[in-house]
Amino acid sequence: MAAELTVPLLTEKHRPTLDQALEAIRSRAYWSPHPEHPKAYGETAPADGLAAHEAVRGTRLDLGQPGTDGWAGGEVSPFGPALAVEYPHVDPDVLLPAMKAGMAAWRDAGPEVRALVSIEILARIGARTHEFAHAVMHTSGQAFMMAFQAGGPHAQDRGLEAVAYAYAEQTRVPGQADWSKPQGKKDPLNLGKTFTAVPRGIALVIGCNTFPTWNGYPGLFASLATGNAVLVKAHPRAVLPLALTVQVAREVLAEAGFDPNLVALAAEQPGEGIAKTLALRPEIKIIDYTGSTEFGDWLEQNARQALVYTEKAGVNTVVVDSTDDYRGMLSNLAFSLSLYSGQMCTTPQNLLIPRDGIATDGGHKTFDEVVADLATSVEKLLGDDARANALLGALVNPGVKERLEAAAGLGEVALASRTVANPEFPDAVVRTPVLVKLDAAKPDDAAAYMSECFGPVAFAVAVDSTADALDLLRRTVRDKGAMTVGAYTTSPDTERAVEQVCLDESAQLSLNLTGGVYVNQTAAFSDFHGSGGNPAANAALCDGAFVANRFRVVEVRRQA
Amino acid sequence: MAAELTVPLLTEKHRPTLDQALEAIRSRAYWSPHPEHPKAYGETAPADGLAAHEAVRGTRLDLGQPGTDGWAGGEVSPFGPALAVEYPHVDPDVLLPAMKAGMAAWRDAGPEVRALVSIEILARIGARTHEFAHAVMHTSGQAFMMAFQAGGPHAQDRGLEAVAYAYAEQTRVPGQADWSKPQGKKDPLNLGKTFTAVPRGIALVIGCNTFPTWNGYPGLFASLATGNAVLVKAHPRAVLPLALTVQVAREVLAEAGFDPNLVALAAEQPGEGIAKTLALRPEIKIIDYTGSTEFGDWLEQNARQALVYTEKAGVNTVVVDSTDDYRGMLSNLAFSLSLYSGQMCTTPQNLLIPRDGIATDGGHKTFDEVVADLATSVEKLLGDDARANALLGALVNPGVKERLEAAAGLGEVALASRTVANPEFPDAVVRTPVLVKLDAAKPDDAAAYMSECFGPVAFAVAVDSTADALDLLRRTVRDKGAMTVGAYTTSPDTERAVEQVCLDESAQLSLNLTGGVYVNQTAAFSDFHGSGGNPAANAALCDGAFVANRFRVVEVRRQA
Repeated sequence: MAAELTVPLLTEKHRPTLDQALEAIRSRAYWSPHPEHPKAYGETAPADGLAAHEAVRGTRLDLGQPGTDGWAGGEVSPFGPALAVEYPHVDPDVLLPAMKAGMAAWRDAGPEVRALVSIEILARIGARTHEFAHAVMHTSGQAFMMAFQAGGPHAQDRGLEAVAYAYAEQTRVPGQADWSKPQGKKDPLNLGKTFTAVPRGIALVIGCNTFPTWNGYPGLFASLATGNAVLVKAHPRAVLPLALTVQVAREVLAEAGFDPNLVALAAEQPGEGIAKTLALRPEIKIIDYTGSTEFGDWLEQNARQALVYTEKAGVNTVVVDSTDDYRGMLSNLAFSLSLYSGQMCTTPQNLLIPRDGIATDGGHKTFDEVVADLATSVEKLLGDDARANALLGALVNPGVKERLEAAAGLGEVALASRTVANPEFPDAVVRTPVLVKLDAAKPDDAAAYMSECFGPVAFAVAVDSTADALDLLRRTVRDKGAMTVGAYTTSPDTERAVEQVCLDESAQLSLNLTGGVYVNQTAAFSDFHGSGGNPAANAALCDGAFVANRFRVVEVRRQA
Repeated sequence: MAAELTVPLLTEKHRPTLDQALEAIRSRAYWSPHPEHPKAYGETAPADGLAAHEAVRGTRLDLGQPGTDGWAGGEVSPFGPALAVEYPHVDPDVLLPAMKAGMAAWRDAGPEVRALVSIEILARIGARTHEFAHAVMHTSGQAFMMAFQAGGPHAQDRGLEAVAYAYAEQTRVPGQADWSKPQGKKDPLNLGKTFTAVPRGIALVIGCNTFPTWNGYPGLFASLATGNAVLVKAHPRAVLPLALTVQVAREVLAEAGFDPNLVALAAEQPGEGIAKTLALRPEIKIIDYTGSTEFGDWLEQNARQALVYTEKAGVNTVVVDSTDDYRGMLSNLAFSLSLYSGQMCTTPQNLLIPRDGIATDGGHKTFDEVVADLATSVEKLLGDDARANALLGALVNPGVKERLEAAAGLGEVALASRTVANPEFPDAVVRTPVLVKLDAAKPDDAAAYMSECFGPVAFAVAVDSTADALDLLRRTVRDKGAMTVGAYTTSPDTERAVEQVCLDESAQLSLNLTGGVYVNQTAAFSDFHGSGGNPAANAALCDGAFVANRFRVVEVRRQA
């Protein structure tokens, strides 16, 4: 096969990016090659992206995959319209062997070529960021700007980060080595050795509804860049962004002279549950999953032939002890609770506040004052419907709405959720967060704050003291897991104490955020997403452990 | 606690060693700081080591551990004498919490101090290598020189290699980073970040009978150097070498100002099976195991709260296609089959030889000639009883003898096993290998060559062709696993074909070994022991994946 994307061309285009990514994961300073501003993509990009999105609606997205035994689809945008796109439904008995066929050539290409091809895939996705933004928006319910940033450049960053880790890990061992062992007065023993990174097999990515690209790319690119074939089983309500991703990957692989079947999509009929079937196939050696604890646990316990990387439910806590920027704290928290209607695995849920109140730069504030002031901050942030729509997006599914409505019955409502009208998408269900008061001293309240209530629901939990808050934080992380922990304090001792809890229980901590960085946001190349050390996730995005076991090193030694 | 082993002292003593080890795992050239020659340890070392070994016999080895609720022991040397050493039997409800108590300080010490303390432990073990050699000899049944080398410097090498990997992995992320994200005309977003490697919890090392130190040290030091406490559950027939190891570790930890309970020993009463109990304790977060597939599988399926690293049974193959050094091949194979009576997880078992014979520098050799010549080579190698004893050691347990005797009934015996008298240890059971002819074309023979027959048993399996041999090799590795594969060929095409099988099935390959390097030996810092990619082991010694998940990184970020 004559490759259009030759190695010299790929090297010229992408080796500098790879080198910068390698440096960034080492320094962990700020870096990204993927612009966040929609305007950075050229004057016609917004219109082109929208047109491309509209053109794909109502079509059959034929990816040219072997083993396509039918078509599945049926996504309906959380903003209202049906997408009406059909995707390939697969016969694993045909598709999986076809996916394996190209693996030897992909393995033999080596880590650098795999990295460069992966970056080309990301670059082509990047060029279509506006189109992807619409796809993410109309599957996740994220408002456009968030879908653009989180589903576009930030997801591409996480994919590139995984590529960089994969490359670094595979090249820790040289391709060859001469080994000469002295034997005293006798001749030394000499061996020539070669070392080859070999893949595990076929990797299965099980996508999620809320962040199909952001949560899907790390596993997809970590597996692909380490030589594995990748089958993407998208969430039935969020297929389009990953189908487009697979389409681009197949196109780039073919142009680079590799088998496009190294990456394939599996869509499913409603209620079919093919993830279970695929996860137990002997060909599947790696699984990446984001979603419910129930299915994550099932995968970990049943897919024994595979390495299983899971991100599951957790309960995120913010400890409110004291602050020297009360207004900054309130506005920062209000934004964190509101963004994407709290439908992020990183959104804070439990705000632990001493019942006697806290010290602030505006004087002492009682528990009730803090809660009321936070409620006011949220109301102000979301008071304007246009701004509210731009921040909240739409509820991703009816389950979120049910939980939101049930939450009002769990305690005293400090801030009621309000319905926001969306003139552009009248069918979108747009709701502001509910803030409910609970009390750690009341045993009946524990059921609420000790489980994840995914969606725009926050609990202001009264605690006896900051020490009490730290005990509860520790128990929450240990028993329920947490993707994020936040804390506000002006006390160095309290700061050390909360750090200690997070080190003991493996939780990622944000301290005293009062500006434009929020506890629920992490930046690739610098911040870890999850720790992999508490029940919320068994892996972190992205570190050495996330990539190191996706390949093995085979040594061939010869007498020299 | 006033530390006698200060950080400056440890740095001066061991940082150069750590740096050399880091360079060695990168270049994979030959390197070892641990001398192989008994004479390198000083003139009085042999007598001192023997005296120390004799002094410990018949004593109670009180390690000063909390939660000691009794004493267990009862090892009998495969060379005859009872060791009569008693070791602490533990109450996990007391010991495990005590082991956790020192973990925060050990974590806070950081990766470099943990590496230096680990190297000090290895250095003190190294200084007592003669004593350890006797301990390994009289538990494993290895002859003295092998016990000295494999149980001493080679095991210390593997421990140091794990320390180097652990250090490298933990320091891939900086301790701190400044992060500044441009915001166009607005002020940048600034965060200060710290990154801390945090341990998983308590690691359990489940030791094996044949290589208590060599197979025990990688997991022990990988876990310790990544901040975990380590509980060593020795094999009931091979406690002494690991008990001495724990003793040294506790002594060094205390002198360096850390809690000695970070490392502890668990001995057991005969038939007690405490490994199962310990493996399921919630405090145990990491398990390293070498032994039977049955128990390895049990651990993987049941110890779900822990990361489980297992080395299990496998079937090692040598493909004999052709050679330009027939005598070299025969003597190399004869040595590999004989060393430690084939009781190595890396010893070849199945020699696949075309039934029409092979081309050699001595002309064409029929299948029967090759087998007969190999038998003669083994007979010559082991013809002298003194030399035979020095190579073979003793059978480690009665099960090996039973398998050896049963093997003679599996096919035509090309070389019968003979009993070698050991004048120094008359009770030792010393047996030369049996070589049995099988035929891949006879379905009844498959049961023999498709399962591990651990001990001095080799099968010369007639195959239709080299292509047939490669098919059988592929099936064997895929279905049964292999720690090693060997091949002899003068054909570049055959060489590529066997390489291809090993890359496809993740097996470590040695080609055309005819000199002083044997397929069953691997050198730390350069060779991988196992691949972690076939059923014989789920991890390789030692690579990034072996250490990367033993710790997690916790980030604390603060608004700057």
